[in-house]
Amino acid sequence: MTAPDLTSLIESLPRGMVITDPDVLSAYRYDRANDPDAGTPAALVRPMTTEHVQTAVRWAAAHDVPIITRGAGTSLSGGSTAVDGALTISTEKMRQLTVDTATRTAVTQPGMLNAEVKAAAAEKGLWYPPDPSSFEICSIGGNVATNAGGLCCVKYGVTTDYVLGLEVVLADGRALRLGGKQLKDSAGLPLTKLFVGSEGLLGIVTEVTLRLLPPQAPACTVVGSFGSVRAAVEAVLTVTSQIRPAMLEFMDGVSINAVEDMLKMGLDRDAGALLVAQSDAPGPAGAAEVALIEEAFGACGAAEVFATSDPVESEAFTAARRAAIPAVERIGALLLEDVGVPLPALPDLIDGVGAIAAENDVLISVIAHAGDGNTHPLIVHDPADAEETARANRAFGQIMDLAISLGGTITGEHGVGRLKKGWLRDQVGDDVMDLMEMIKSAVDPKGLLNPGVMLS
Amino acid sequence: MTAPDLTSLIESLPRGMVITDPDVLSAYRYDRANDPDAGTPAALVRPMTTEHVQTAVRWAAAHDVPIITRGAGTSLSGGSTAVDGALTISTEKMRQLTVDTATRTAVTQPGMLNAEVKAAAAEKGLWYPPDPSSFEICSIGGNVATNAGGLCCVKYGVTTDYVLGLEVVLADGRALRLGGKQLKDSAGLPLTKLFVGSEGLLGIVTEVTLRLLPPQAPACTVVGSFGSVRAAVEAVLTVTSQIRPAMLEFMDGVSINAVEDMLKMGLDRDAGALLVAQSDAPGPAGAAEVALIEEAFGACGAAEVFATSDPVESEAFTAARRAAIPAVERIGALLLEDVGVPLPALPDLIDGVGAIAAENDVLISVIAHAGDGNTHPLIVHDPADAEETARANRAFGQIMDLAISLGGTITGEHGVGRLKKGWLRDQVGDDVMDLMEMIKSAVDPKGLLNPGVMLS
Repeated sequence: MTAPDLTSLIESLPRGMVITDPDVLSAYRYDRANDPDAGTPAALVRPMTTEHVQTAVRWAAAHDVPIITRGAGTSLSGGSTAVDGALTISTEKMRQLTVDTATRTAVTQPGMLNAEVKAAAAEKGLWYPPDPSSFEICSIGGNVATNAGGLCCVKYGVTTDYVLGLEVVLADGRALRLGGKQLKDSAGLPLTKLFVGSEGLLGIVTEVTLRLLPPQAPACTVVGSFGSVRAAVEAVLTVTSQIRPAMLEFMDGVSINAVEDMLKMGLDRDAGALLVAQSDAPGPAGAAEVALIEEAFGACGAAEVFATSDPVESEAFTAARRAAIPAVERIGALLLEDVGVPLPALPDLIDGVGAIAAENDVLISVIAHAGDGNTHPLIVHDPADAEETARANRAFGQIMDLAISLGGTITGEHGVGRLKKGWLRDQVGDDVMDLMEMIKSAVDPKGLLNPGVMLS
Repeated sequence: MTAPDLTSLIESLPRGMVITDPDVLSAYRYDRANDPDAGTPAALVRPMTTEHVQTAVRWAAAHDVPIITRGAGTSLSGGSTAVDGALTISTEKMRQLTVDTATRTAVTQPGMLNAEVKAAAAEKGLWYPPDPSSFEICSIGGNVATNAGGLCCVKYGVTTDYVLGLEVVLADGRALRLGGKQLKDSAGLPLTKLFVGSEGLLGIVTEVTLRLLPPQAPACTVVGSFGSVRAAVEAVLTVTSQIRPAMLEFMDGVSINAVEDMLKMGLDRDAGALLVAQSDAPGPAGAAEVALIEEAFGACGAAEVFATSDPVESEAFTAARRAAIPAVERIGALLLEDVGVPLPALPDLIDGVGAIAAENDVLISVIAHAGDGNTHPLIVHDPADAEETARANRAFGQIMDLAISLGGTITGEHGVGRLKKGWLRDQVGDDVMDLMEMIKSAVDPKGLLNPGVMLS
């Protein structure tokens, strides 16, 4: 497409807010999905206020220029990958945040990082639960766009469970307030919920009202190392059929070794799989949960079971699990899967991923939020090796096919983005695709917002 | 409108499924809102399967006949009030239900009552938390349509927090499956969430997949009687600023006396207000919560504080609170409010309702899910007294105006229905109304589903 004349946009926003320097633009081409088809933005806009966003969107609408909204650029599905000729609107400078203890809410602009929201809540004696592994580097706006999950969501739910209100800028530049600080609200269509997880297709989130909880009780951690992946997965089902742990994470042998290479914390390099579980139930109830987890791990053949109530030790194991993706990434580039299945299908999913790895002769390390059936097979490959990359890409698709065949989802928490949209129709069917497209067309008739994301 | 020729509809469904007997039809005119403007259905359809619903909807679409979907007919906002010339589709015979312990889910047709879902879950050692006061007589389909709340949702959330998947029939007769048994799913626009609380405007829910929890731990109940409403409300804020109780219910003096008249359980007839709180935290944590609640009640001037861990006593107080609406209804007909505010505004809301009662010279009894700021002012009036009814209606509107002015909502859990739609625009504004109407028009372009509900 022809490069748009940016003069009127530049003039209508504060000096320096619209950036066209090619060096800067090139830094905004990719997100963590490293899509090789990433384009280059026509310009980068870094608004600080809702009004700035409205100005940019109105300009784009008037000139038929598409918009890619970008948070911290940590999308693993290509949700913020740049498009040639489009504006990239980065929310990184939208960083106002207030915590209201009386209503137990945080009102934040989208550019705040998840960890910053957590910290601000904690400073006031409150807790923002959702905890993607990337919580130190991902933005709350991106969390809302993808309905991000994390480790504690097996017990505490995902982002949508904490979003009470939103301010959004629609494709025509209007700013809308949805929901608010009240805990219950049945007035009108549930638009707040529609926007959480809509991957920026319906509007740009410019403010989020988040529900906060009282602080989490101190958790006890149980770590089990297993000879085989299968034994560990059986232990997961044994636990989840009886209690609802506050965390139940899975790592396979490859990821254990990768993390041990990086952190040197003394993980068992010979283990086939590791489970890290937590209970935050207080008092005797917590002790009973810990005992139940230990017993389940033992009954399923754990070689070693270790329980601790020491917060430093607990955090070390949680950090090990969180480090798995960057650790495995040191072996090679990753195609990062995010498939989820109903829990009883978890063994079949994990076995099937093993078979897909063998069939395609690629290394696939599996880590998982096992307690909610959401897995992250990490497909290791060398992007410089076209043939291997082709095999990795084939495995990527086959894993989604497998999850769909098991009644699951192609994405539990990362979103469809650009990388997974080829499989969305297979999961949801033609009629649901049609409904999504009807809603997208009604709300953004020109298709200006995040073209190429989720829908085609 | 001209009465539609029903022959082809009658012929296309099993014998007896389409009912035109005027005596039967007249029983389906009203719901619990008793809207005096209720119409009479052209016919009543009582499908048993999704295919029956599709047949009826396709017929209606082909003949431009509007459809009112009705669950158990317990809507308090007129959501299932009949419309002249429309089909009423009642889901009362859609009563298949299965509980899957492996995935901790229930898959149910919409006609099952909330209490039946709870009982089926309990039979398998699981728990379906949402508990509207009407749980013994309201249907799960209606709960989904209104995103129903209840007493325990101050801690456990509302219906939308438990809906993992839906089957819906769209206005053109297509049946769609949304979501499923997986706990996390970020694939595509969050349509499951869009349908929960959409009051039947976008489709007819024909199956619901519900998330179940492990059973609730035994709860301790703390009851406090207060000299004044204001003192009780202060106690609410004192508790909620420190802990998250499993229940925190409020009754004023009028409702206390009405319940005592009906149940004769020994409530303090002189009390200005009663609070019923519960903690279900296990062990010492629960004891600490109970002590905190007792202390807060005492510090705010409770005349009497009573704590019990006896399940029978606990249930008696919960039942007393649940009985408040039918009990007050024995004084006179009710206009039943459902306004909610952010918690710090609760005292102003309750004071303001008192002022509105005085100004309009009507009796308004206030009960509330106080812990989440959701109140039910019950406006007592005699429908045969036109002048008093006019004053009651004025008060009804003024209470919504007040809630809006306090940053709250016109409906926390009952839905907008027909009775409250005149205030929805005041709450959400023109642009949000516009967005709702865009989505409604896109999904139901002929406006056949629940015309007159929520939107005009």
